[in-house]
Amino acid sequence: MSEFKLHPRLQADTLFIADLSLCRLLLVNDNQYPWTLLVPRRPDLKEAHHLSPKDQQQLQLESNTLCRAMESLFSPDKLNVAAIGNVVPQLHIHHIARFKTDVSWPAPVWGALPAVPYSQLEKTQLVTQLQNAIQTS
Amino acid sequence: MSEFKLHPRLQADTLFIADLSLCRLLLVNDNQYPWTLLVPRRPDLKEAHHLSPKDQQQLQLESNTLCRAMESLFSPDKLNVAAIGNVVPQLHIHHIARFKTDVSWPAPVWGALPAVPYSQLEKTQLVTQLQNAIQTS
Repeated sequence: MSEFKLHPRLQADTLFIADLSLCRLLLVNDNQYPWTLLVPRRPDLKEAHHLSPKDQQQLQLESNTLCRAMESLFSPDKLNVAAIGNVVPQLHIHHIARFKTDVSWPAPVWGALPAVPYSQLEKTQLVTQLQNAIQTS
Repeated sequence: MSEFKLHPRLQADTLFIADLSLCRLLLVNDNQYPWTLLVPRRPDLKEAHHLSPKDQQQLQLESNTLCRAMESLFSPDKLNVAAIGNVVPQLHIHHIARFKTDVSWPAPVWGALPAVPYSQLEKTQLVTQLQNAIQTS
């Protein structure tokens, strides 16, 4: 039986925040936008509607919790929530806090600008903030 | 009490397919990709997680049905499912059938290329196909 293994591209581009009941929660290493990913820990999964009904319900719960946490932490003008996966086929759901003042607004972030990595201090702070916010949202 | 009214930009860019229990289902008038929208018929709604739990569950059901219908009709390489809304704030969830051979692959479709409208015949055929597929998926 095949096991869940994070796609090498996701591994390279992100920082670990937490393992929730179903999903691995990751922070995209790009300081231009607060940008997280939910990756259901199921092998060989490309589309959310291919999850079992129970897993879909859990994904919905975890996505809601993450949306509330990001709203509470960042007060964005808009959340962008998207499953695209044309480049990395492993199902991952983007949750991005967007601001009318951000560098790509109103365009979507994908392919817009090269990532600007966080400093070590920023990384630690943001990962901790998100870990705390997800527990109380 | 305010009522649901489709945003003028969505009205202008789409063709009506069906009213499901919760959502209006629309076809984006761009023949470069099979591209549909689900718009929950609730007023003043920007984010999916602001729907009631019951409406969220219904949205999930309608999105699943639409994904199955589009898989069955188009056999895409990937579905792109996304709530962005930076330009049109009214909540609308894109469902796009993507192909390795389409004009924008692997980039996302938003802002990629100007829309190419369907002919009258294509419109009628595709709307009918989608109306039938949604009933059997």
